[in-house]
Amino acid sequence: MLEQCIKNVREQQPLIHNITNYVTVNDVANAILTVGASPIMADDAAEVEEITSICQGLNINIGTLNSRTIESMKLAGKKAASLKHALLLDPVGAGASHLRTNTAGELLDQIHFTAIRGNVSELKALAGQAQTTQGVDANAADAVTKENLAEMAAFAKEYAKKTQCVIVMTGAIDLVADQDRCYAIYNGRAEMARITGTGCQLSGIMTAFLAANPDKPLEACACAVIAMGLAGEIAYDHLTPYEGNSSYRNRIIDALSQMDESMIKEGARYEIC
Amino acid sequence: MLEQCIKNVREQQPLIHNITNYVTVNDVANAILTVGASPIMADDAAEVEEITSICQGLNINIGTLNSRTIESMKLAGKKAASLKHALLLDPVGAGASHLRTNTAGELLDQIHFTAIRGNVSELKALAGQAQTTQGVDANAADAVTKENLAEMAAFAKEYAKKTQCVIVMTGAIDLVADQDRCYAIYNGRAEMARITGTGCQLSGIMTAFLAANPDKPLEACACAVIAMGLAGEIAYDHLTPYEGNSSYRNRIIDALSQMDESMIKEGARYEIC
Amino acid sequence: MLEQCIKNVREQQPLIHNITNYVTVNDVANAILTVGASPIMADDAAEVEEITSICQGLNINIGTLNSRTIESMKLAGKKAASLKHALLLDPVGAGASHLRTNTAGELLDQIHFTAIRGNVSELKALAGQAQTTQGVDANAADAVTKENLAEMAAFAKEYAKKTQCVIVMTGAIDLVADQDRCYAIYNGRAEMARITGTGCQLSGIMTAFLAANPDKPLEACACAVIAMGLAGEIAYDHLTPYEGNSSYRNRIIDALSQMDESMIKEGARYEIC
Repeated sequence: MLEQCIKNVREQQPLIHNITNYVTVNDVANAILTVGASPIMADDAAEVEEITSICQGLNINIGTLNSRTIESMKLAGKKAASLKHALLLDPVGAGASHLRTNTAGELLDQIHFTAIRGNVSELKALAGQAQTTQGVDANAADAVTKENLAEMAAFAKEYAKKTQCVIVMTGAIDLVADQDRCYAIYNGRAEMARITGTGCQLSGIMTAFLAANPDKPLEACACAVIAMGLAGEIAYDHLTPYEGNSSYRNRIIDALSQMDESMIKEGARYEIC
Repeated sequence: MLEQCIKNVREQQPLIHNITNYVTVNDVANAILTVGASPIMADDAAEVEEITSICQGLNINIGTLNSRTIESMKLAGKKAASLKHALLLDPVGAGASHLRTNTAGELLDQIHFTAIRGNVSELKALAGQAQTTQGVDANAADAVTKENLAEMAAFAKEYAKKTQCVIVMTGAIDLVADQDRCYAIYNGRAEMARITGTGCQLSGIMTAFLAANPDKPLEACACAVIAMGLAGEIAYDHLTPYEGNSSYRNRIIDALSQMDESMIKEGARYEIC
Repeated sequence: MLEQCIKNVREQQPLIHNITNYVTVNDVANAILTVGASPIMADDAAEVEEITSICQGLNINIGTLNSRTIESMKLAGKKAASLKHALLLDPVGAGASHLRTNTAGELLDQIHFTAIRGNVSELKALAGQAQTTQGVDANAADAVTKENLAEMAAFAKEYAKKTQCVIVMTGAIDLVADQDRCYAIYNGRAEMARITGTGCQLSGIMTAFLAANPDKPLEACACAVIAMGLAGEIAYDHLTPYEGNSSYRNRIIDALSQMDESMIKEGARYEIC
């Protein structure tokens, strides 16, 4: 059933408004295009409400936030929420600075998001449970492992209940939770963390999956996570001897552009806990 | 004759000032380099007039405009116009927000551009003929087809006459018009629309073509359109089984970097109407 | 001995704060990841001091500077200097506008950098010896050649003495100098200048090399230059018939991600003068 979510994206071709960082913005635009959706980037306060109104989803990513764009995120977020659009927050670097932690907190206080996608350290920071931080990457101490899976799934469900969002916590094992159920997804490869942008790309396509599957946000997010993880696996298998990080990045986007329902169905590796 | 325009770019190596969006800026820089020209990006009001003065062309793209950069676009545009530089406007998303439509309109009112390059929806919005909008992509209803070619060519010529610019309207069929003649160009592939940045890249290289061919702006623009379309065709032919969107993007830039006079001459498919 | 510097980066995995231009920022992030280090980009005045405090190095690149980010560069730079972090300045386009030349000058006046990396024209502009300028590329007249090597090495050493920085002057021959010694490095290929970002990438990885080798900044910079040059050579050797600029860019990053101590040791071509 879950695999149908990708078919819906390709059929409905939602238009996704992104207020995102300038590091990976090109990858985000291309990733959104790979799944048949269309991206638009706009971050000026004078137009974000109008732009988001013509879209079906809004992806807010605080990776290179500044005072000007924070204002735009709030304006766009409120408008998108009022229109019941798919609305995703990627709290890049929450925990690494007060500006990031506080901005993400304010956005969550003022706007009801459909989903939050981050690494474990970022989500712990938002939930007020962070210890230390390692920039925009998760701390080694925050890894989700088979040993702490039950505990982490409980945290994800609890935070989903508190925020009334789908919580997507990505890492070696990816967790996708609402207050009742948690998908533990085993797709993906460790090498994906050695190129920039796979997390941001996932947030971009996930917003499109949410926009095209409004009645099943949990499955939409899980399907997006599986698609990205599978793309990482397929891309790795196709690497030739002298190919390294940059080719891996390209091959992931290539694989995403060829991903369909049957590939998801056959390749998905997850359990529900 | 038209094909000589690419030779002139490679020989003269013009320096092109770009005030462009942060989504595709890297592609624009690399595309400009592929044709032997050099890019410089600068968008602060305190330096844009000085920067544009050392260049031979200015490419203004409003894809992620904001209040700060709009001011810089106006300052740079006026300076470049006063120096008779090649001057191109890419009105990304005109019609999608009042800010974009109005900014493009103000730039056109205050500055004489050599050329305007956009999709049909954007150009209709500028000409005051837009109905609806679909973000930064053209509406399906705005496609140029064999059936409406005569009508669309007439619109392009009329708008060229009104603005005294070369009008470049890209889509399935590309139109390049001044008030007297319109090239209808059949090069290119539909798949080019599924990766971000081909339009922005075209605007970048077109500015270089204009700078290196000041006496024949219509042919310069047509040659740039043909070069980009041919690159899309060649790139597609070289795709291997597991390559998708990202490899296609790379192969287009690869093909551009190998494009020469004879390839244009042999590969060009167009008629003048 | 010099080759050990890359091993130290891969082992220590320093976190590098970058305030850099939006043209090549994605390449910079990916380049830093290729050598085992981690990038974080942050440019808002409200967070740059906090962000730089959790890092081990700061890379300031003025390629698309503006009034807002200039302030952030100064705040971050002063904080990083006070913490004795590795601190690098890439004065992109110094000499092309007063804003760039003056901003680089103010940064150098107010902050003690570990290294400055630029092309010859940029460094001459900073040293007050520039004649003319050609945008962000070096003037042809400023090439380092076998004929003027002694003279240019003397200039680099003198400027290193004056600024108490390692001076890295890249071009056909790369010079890496402190006040006593100058490495003249012959690795690299001319084709690297036909893609955007190789200089910015070098500045990014060089900051990581400096952070991981605090006791030998001269060798750290020389090793980074050799690694980048070698990557350009290896990438070129692997190009297949229809590959051009974009594939070359990708293959350089691929080669960097596979670069190790033994490749540096075997492939380095330099003399000390």
